[in-house]
Amino acid sequence: MSTTNRRIVLISRPQGTPQAENFRTEVVEIPELAEGEVLLRHSWLGLAPAARLRMTEQASYREPMALGDVVYGQAVGRVVASKEPGLPVGTSVMSIGGGWQEYSIGNAENLVKIDEAIAPPSVWLGALGTSGMTAYIGLLDLGKPRVGETVVVSAASGGVGSNVGQIARLKGCRVVGIAGGQEKVQHLTEVLGFDAAVDYRSPNFAEQLRVACPSGADIYFENVGGAVRDAVWPVMNQGGRIVVCGLIAEYNDNRQGGPGWFPILSKRLSIQGFIMSDHLHRQQAFLQDMRQWIREGRIQVQEDVSEGLESVVPAFIRLLTGKKFGKSVVKL
Amino acid sequence: MSTTNRRIVLISRPQGTPQAENFRTEVVEIPELAEGEVLLRHSWLGLAPAARLRMTEQASYREPMALGDVVYGQAVGRVVASKEPGLPVGTSVMSIGGGWQEYSIGNAENLVKIDEAIAPPSVWLGALGTSGMTAYIGLLDLGKPRVGETVVVSAASGGVGSNVGQIARLKGCRVVGIAGGQEKVQHLTEVLGFDAAVDYRSPNFAEQLRVACPSGADIYFENVGGAVRDAVWPVMNQGGRIVVCGLIAEYNDNRQGGPGWFPILSKRLSIQGFIMSDHLHRQQAFLQDMRQWIREGRIQVQEDVSEGLESVVPAFIRLLTGKKFGKSVVKL
Repeated sequence: MSTTNRRIVLISRPQGTPQAENFRTEVVEIPELAEGEVLLRHSWLGLAPAARLRMTEQASYREPMALGDVVYGQAVGRVVASKEPGLPVGTSVMSIGGGWQEYSIGNAENLVKIDEAIAPPSVWLGALGTSGMTAYIGLLDLGKPRVGETVVVSAASGGVGSNVGQIARLKGCRVVGIAGGQEKVQHLTEVLGFDAAVDYRSPNFAEQLRVACPSGADIYFENVGGAVRDAVWPVMNQGGRIVVCGLIAEYNDNRQGGPGWFPILSKRLSIQGFIMSDHLHRQQAFLQDMRQWIREGRIQVQEDVSEGLESVVPAFIRLLTGKKFGKSVVKL
Repeated sequence: MSTTNRRIVLISRPQGTPQAENFRTEVVEIPELAEGEVLLRHSWLGLAPAARLRMTEQASYREPMALGDVVYGQAVGRVVASKEPGLPVGTSVMSIGGGWQEYSIGNAENLVKIDEAIAPPSVWLGALGTSGMTAYIGLLDLGKPRVGETVVVSAASGGVGSNVGQIARLKGCRVVGIAGGQEKVQHLTEVLGFDAAVDYRSPNFAEQLRVACPSGADIYFENVGGAVRDAVWPVMNQGGRIVVCGLIAEYNDNRQGGPGWFPILSKRLSIQGFIMSDHLHRQQAFLQDMRQWIREGRIQVQEDVSEGLESVVPAFIRLLTGKKFGKSVVKL
């Protein structure tokens, strides 16, 4: 076992899209474990847009990272040294705050045991992890879909969006995905079973979206914001619900304006922002449903896989610029 | 009894604030009653901003008025001729669609009997009518106030706002009103018992609002939109609820932009548009509570009273330009 840890730290705050020079890879000694702690060797890292929010100094829903901090991110791996009897060496776990590094130290509070017999480790960072749970809670608990309703989801080929669309189909909804590029759009309808998909880069995107929603939209699962949201806005039906899960188009440039509010009144819209970690009491229900759907082949897992710690920053930039496909995971 | 009816019709669609020349007063013969109909002589008309929405051709939540139509509005009065056994001559009723005229024809479907022993007729157009019920439903059913929370209400001295603030006080909330001008602001705190009130015309309005909400705002009851809403936006607390009841600042000029959406996500805000007429099943509960609160002197009725049909248009313009005080009613 190594006595050193390679890790990626934030050395300057990105302006706009993060660049390689905002980060540095460093090698440090692994410290001694205290009582109750375990040393985790990461086998997979999961990348998520939320990390971008923490790179900015302005207040968000989480504390910003400090310069010099290991970059925030999830990881799965195995316990390789333990001073916690409940987590013996060899245990497979997921760490929400594992970070962009080869090793992390955790305890029983912040590690979740995973069962590799149900799904391989990387899936516990995606469909069975926070991406899947975010989709499940946001769509079912907040969007409250009814059979026959139309659900529109943006960033539809991403880690959250691909699960939102597939769960909505399972619940009897008509599902319209918004994604960037013909390859993703085809994948949504041909592989994931969406009823329709629209390319937001298309010059007549708004018109295509309207055509894809002949009965309007009852639920909009918002991952993007900006111009994508503005195109969905006029398509919303009376009584429509908008679940605001992410605003990735606005993370890099802090776009200030939103659409006018008149339709909120005239269409009795409801708009609900949410952060998955407020809903952890629903984790057992989520795991039970999602495990079964994956086992039955009703949810397909879509991953964008890179390999090696040196591929983390490029994969993260790809994630933020809409160039990846499925949940971003990095094999170490 | 007169055989003619004086009425105000819409002859052109207002651009911006309505002007006298958008309306014409005409005298017409009162038609014969059909079976099931009654003739109602209006004693009071109630004016509401919603009428402005129906003067515009664009789609809203109600059909626009046609040119030549009697202007939409509520009225109370007495049955003076009847072909409906359930509504004999002498019955006091409220008509939601009575309109800006001296007489209207109604039936058992669209008239509500009122009890003048509980409150004088004009109150059935305000605190015991749609204004009061809008406040009651919007605040209690949608805003869901909890004891100790801060409720901010705009157009706070108006027919809806004055009831929102008073009901919120009854429910144990700290109440901050937004209104135009020192006279209204003083009235809110000194007569209606608001905890604080802020003048949106003040040059440092946004700063005053922040000071008036030392613990932020948990509920914003939105009647105004535009710059007033934009000042409340940064004051909202995590988990805050915004009930969108009206956007009077945007009715005359169709302002398009709204605030950026990032706080919806970071603060998990919920924003809910509503139209009172979707909630008529709550009318009995409303009447029971509101009658009792008025009887006990816990809700004070505030009216802006004009007299005569010729005063209707000026009073309506005053209403839309923020120059009135309390529910706008016209005695005929």
